[in-house]
Amino acid sequence: MAAVPTLARRIARSGVRPLCRWPLSWGRASRQPPGLPLAPCRAFSNNKILVELDESSGVAMMKFKSPPVNSLSLDFLTEFCISLEKLENDRACRGVIFTSAVPKIFSSGLDITEMCGKSMEHYAEFWRAVQEIWLRLYGSNMVTVAAVNGSSPAGGCLVALSCDYRIMVENPKFSIGLNEAQLGIVAPFWFKDTFVNVVGHRIAERSLQLGSLYPAPEAFKFGLVDELVPEEKLQEKAMAVMAQWLALPDHARQLTKSMMRKVVLDRLVAHREEDIQNFISFISKESIQKSLRMYMDMLKKRKS
Amino acid sequence: MAAVPTLARRIARSGVRPLCRWPLSWGRASRQPPGLPLAPCRAFSNNKILVELDESSGVAMMKFKSPPVNSLSLDFLTEFCISLEKLENDRACRGVIFTSAVPKIFSSGLDITEMCGKSMEHYAEFWRAVQEIWLRLYGSNMVTVAAVNGSSPAGGCLVALSCDYRIMVENPKFSIGLNEAQLGIVAPFWFKDTFVNVVGHRIAERSLQLGSLYPAPEAFKFGLVDELVPEEKLQEKAMAVMAQWLALPDHARQLTKSMMRKVVLDRLVAHREEDIQNFISFISKESIQKSLRMYMDMLKKRKS
Amino acid sequence: MAAVPTLARRIARSGVRPLCRWPLSWGRASRQPPGLPLAPCRAFSNNKILVELDESSGVAMMKFKSPPVNSLSLDFLTEFCISLEKLENDRACRGVIFTSAVPKIFSSGLDITEMCGKSMEHYAEFWRAVQEIWLRLYGSNMVTVAAVNGSSPAGGCLVALSCDYRIMVENPKFSIGLNEAQLGIVAPFWFKDTFVNVVGHRIAERSLQLGSLYPAPEAFKFGLVDELVPEEKLQEKAMAVMAQWLALPDHARQLTKSMMRKVVLDRLVAHREEDIQNFISFISKESIQKSLRMYMDMLKKRKS
Repeated sequence: MAAVPTLARRIARSGVRPLCRWPLSWGRASRQPPGLPLAPCRAFSNNKILVELDESSGVAMMKFKSPPVNSLSLDFLTEFCISLEKLENDRACRGVIFTSAVPKIFSSGLDITEMCGKSMEHYAEFWRAVQEIWLRLYGSNMVTVAAVNGSSPAGGCLVALSCDYRIMVENPKFSIGLNEAQLGIVAPFWFKDTFVNVVGHRIAERSLQLGSLYPAPEAFKFGLVDELVPEEKLQEKAMAVMAQWLALPDHARQLTKSMMRKVVLDRLVAHREEDIQNFISFISKESIQKSLRMYMDMLKKRKS
Repeated sequence: MAAVPTLARRIARSGVRPLCRWPLSWGRASRQPPGLPLAPCRAFSNNKILVELDESSGVAMMKFKSPPVNSLSLDFLTEFCISLEKLENDRACRGVIFTSAVPKIFSSGLDITEMCGKSMEHYAEFWRAVQEIWLRLYGSNMVTVAAVNGSSPAGGCLVALSCDYRIMVENPKFSIGLNEAQLGIVAPFWFKDTFVNVVGHRIAERSLQLGSLYPAPEAFKFGLVDELVPEEKLQEKAMAVMAQWLALPDHARQLTKSMMRKVVLDRLVAHREEDIQNFISFISKESIQKSLRMYMDMLKKRKS
Repeated sequence: MAAVPTLARRIARSGVRPLCRWPLSWGRASRQPPGLPLAPCRAFSNNKILVELDESSGVAMMKFKSPPVNSLSLDFLTEFCISLEKLENDRACRGVIFTSAVPKIFSSGLDITEMCGKSMEHYAEFWRAVQEIWLRLYGSNMVTVAAVNGSSPAGGCLVALSCDYRIMVENPKFSIGLNEAQLGIVAPFWFKDTFVNVVGHRIAERSLQLGSLYPAPEAFKFGLVDELVPEEKLQEKAMAVMAQWLALPDHARQLTKSMMRKVVLDRLVAHREEDIQNFISFISKESIQKSLRMYMDMLKKRKS
């Protein structure tokens, strides 16, 4: 896939360095002779994401720590992708819990600054990274649980939707949904496919057209999230759910998951370049650029 | 599309004339020099349908006024089609509310007299008009809201299902559903596709086989209609819903709608002639004709 | 279809003989001159299944009577298939109710002894029989009602899912679900398709990965079964539901059913040999064989 060299280049230039506290192998890295830069580790941190793997349970906790809102910038996506790949290749890891280290927000979704006033090449690279993270997350062999401890609009919602299970803090101030339409943007077909697979065609159709954001209790009612818990119980609950999923034999579970998701994953794989071109030509329209700039100005004013 | 000449012919012979009260342009008609027969108008009425466009809000109200039951005859479908096309082409119009001017009935569905004892050519023309209205309605770029103020069986239900949102009067005497099977008729695959997209596969499978009609409160429970209101609140509610949908940028909403519905629309477009042949050969069977005649006799007796 | 000769052979060698109490024709058998072994009958019994047809109503009752757990062995499937085919070809029969003559269990699903320590040829023959029963049941022209009077895991659940309607005894000790994953086995794609068509994608995805078995009241909540009744009311309810479905004209109902299920049926027909090869190569893996042997040992110990 064309993404691989791009990614490799970005990894090289990202300067990410593992915190070397893990005695056990860390995926492909372990095949490197000891002493090389990618030495095996137990925990992993880079600028925007913290990963901790508990080897006794086989469960990793991946914490988004990119204030103020964990927006999915190209840098964030690159680190996300590297972290996921490492866990995927680590035999000691069977499941990942995704959560936020930033209060009140899980992830605000795609970083609008990446889509505004940049070059075509940049848009292409950015969109390829968005595709890549979804392909890896939705197609992951690991059990993936979203512990949604804050609002989760747009791309943030996609991250949660791509997991096997979604637990959300029951706070009605936290909302979740694919609200792209509110910004004048169209969620791509694979966002839509992922959404339909969770909430069904009718709710997806209405919600996508209205760009609806749902407070946690409402999102729970129609299955956008699987469970609500008080904030202080979130981690405990996520671990319990993970244990339930890990009680199943990996092989059968993975084949089953693949059977359920393959059609939708294959659709993007088959139309990946076309999807990038669509994104570029849509996002570089003057009307869209204008509306994104207005939105960013509004966000800036709100801050000050 | 083959339908267009047929339709054009019918329009020509229908003798429909606009009520010329609109100062602003009325779609394609506006490109005509002033003084020509198709002059721009604000309201539009023909024999069976009344259209009023409020230009300040961009919302048109389309009222079915073909007593006794707003049945979808070839004439009705032709006027429906013309009215829809005009609104679709009118930049002043962004949304349409469909409702009935006939008490207790939204629409009784396809006119059985069009399917009984007629020529093959007539069946073909009729079915093409049914297809055409669905293609235009389900694929409309406008926001479409069904304000269902009476019973809505079969084709009447299809009209509601093809809208973006369905509000129904909460009267349990008003029922809605695709009850074709009760008459020994099979709903075509695109009725089925539209139904599945709203209520899901299981409810569609059961309801279509049983030809189920649901009282409004029951229809609401499983999402066949989105909302119930007292009759006196229907119009107000429809306007409020419309305002909510029109708050979104048209372009993103239209692309999103198209993304959700394209697969199903394309399926009919690809099999349109085949579907007409299927209809003709089914409807012209002696057993079907006999059962339709019996049904019409029953209706006549009920009246007297 | 390749299944036919195999089936014919098995029928020949199964030694099944009808209990000749039926004056009326019994499907294809009726075309035989009287006095031949396959003479027409009113009731039919073989080793594992009892069939009684009430000609006044057109409803057959098919009772699984293969203790201890009505497991779907090759013999059971063969008799099931023969019985279904006979009813399907009998004009006096319009609907079938499936229930169990064994207390507390509807059917325990595929017989594990058929999948353990056997030859490749055996696996192929067995799997073809499983496919065949599903193709006939899911594609049946008759109205099919599952009267689930006991637990119904895995293949037992598939039998119920393939019917038009599912009524279950409300006893929370009876559970139902596709729990294959718990045994390290993957439900084939057509089990999955059938499941998705009943409960939707999200519930199917989660339930299949977790191999979930649901107590009857829970299964009812999300539509895995359509209705719950006290055990003593089960038969009466099944007859009432059947009468409701039979009130519709057969032809329209059958065409509608076929329209709903054809895509999924065709998918297996198109990939039938491939699916058999998949099953063989999966089931004959040493790891799978080992886990099945362990499971069987566990079952044996539980009994003693």
